[in-house]
Amino acid sequence: MKIKVMENILSANDQLAEANREDFARRHITVVNVMASPGAGKTSVIMELMHRLAGDVPFSVVEGDIASSIDAEKIEAMGVPVLQINTGGGCHLDANMIREAVRELQPPDHSVLFIENVGNLICPSAFDLGETVRMVIASVPEGHDKPYKYVSMFEAADVVILNKIDLKPYIRFDTDSFVRGVRALNEKAPLFEVSCSTGEGFPELTAWLKNQVG
Amino acid sequence: MKIKVMENILSANDQLAEANREDFARRHITVVNVMASPGAGKTSVIMELMHRLAGDVPFSVVEGDIASSIDAEKIEAMGVPVLQINTGGGCHLDANMIREAVRELQPPDHSVLFIENVGNLICPSAFDLGETVRMVIASVPEGHDKPYKYVSMFEAADVVILNKIDLKPYIRFDTDSFVRGVRALNEKAPLFEVSCSTGEGFPELTAWLKNQVG
Repeated sequence: MKIKVMENILSANDQLAEANREDFARRHITVVNVMASPGAGKTSVIMELMHRLAGDVPFSVVEGDIASSIDAEKIEAMGVPVLQINTGGGCHLDANMIREAVRELQPPDHSVLFIENVGNLICPSAFDLGETVRMVIASVPEGHDKPYKYVSMFEAADVVILNKIDLKPYIRFDTDSFVRGVRALNEKAPLFEVSCSTGEGFPELTAWLKNQVG
Repeated sequence: MKIKVMENILSANDQLAEANREDFARRHITVVNVMASPGAGKTSVIMELMHRLAGDVPFSVVEGDIASSIDAEKIEAMGVPVLQINTGGGCHLDANMIREAVRELQPPDHSVLFIENVGNLICPSAFDLGETVRMVIASVPEGHDKPYKYVSMFEAADVVILNKIDLKPYIRFDTDSFVRGVRALNEKAPLFEVSCSTGEGFPELTAWLKNQVG
């Protein structure tokens, strides 16, 4: 009797992520999964991008947090449809949460959906949501050593953003070391240096994102 | 036949944490579990405290990271015994890792052991290491909303540190909102505002820590 060997069976999360990905592609929804440490500026970057893309394409936002709806309230004040997911302790979003959120939010075809993941530079990188773009944000005050320590997050990125560059004059931050660290893990992802205070770097980032929109 | 009901069975981690705690108490080792987001300044705060307590009490340090030994090298350069734990993806330290690390490090009786946990404001709060003091560090650039979003970390703290206060002039940070957020979760933990660049707040924090040393 021959023993059956089963290979490449998707995990429950990966299976749902694939289903999400197919739905998003069919409906031409560009989904940006925004991942970063707590306080790196995920909400601010998303808001700045929406300001700059306003009129070009409709948006909606899913906010992931352990608790509170602080960020969702900021998005709502912009008049953008938003849904808050509170994980109640969970350290990342997963594909099923996004499936349910999209059913509720009903983003229009040919739109952009931003997903702000839970503030965590570790766990979210292991959970595919079915997104189009994995956006990883680091910030100057966190220090230039982050890619050396949080390897899988930077490996998995489709685009890397270095935020809060307006603080460089006040902090010892070695930009070359940061860039080398990212490039050792990830040769392809474009890297943008930005500031949500001064707007620096956003014209380039916005143009890049516009090119990703299906 | 009566069905047996078993209650209060400790999890494997809690059981090992209790064993650690008993060992530490018997040997008068004060163990400080330092928890924070990536880049909040855990290593810098530990190093500044060791500079200020040098001569008063022997130290050793356990460094927890997913990858790299960047922080352990800084500690070693101070001439302090240090052990690096690389979790290889794991998002927190646990009691067994500390048990093994202590067996290797052999900290002397009547000493202070700093444990720098993995940079993560979520998962480490759920894993008792058997520590004496749970030290939670937030930093000004992360924003004043952190206690509202990362509830269990601030609830569990024995001491809360707000680091990088030298950056307040360059960042919109509402100190009152931060303090109210911490106090809503935790009435007892002392809160120290510090800067590793200027040294501000460290005399008070150092004096407090000295009082915890058994």
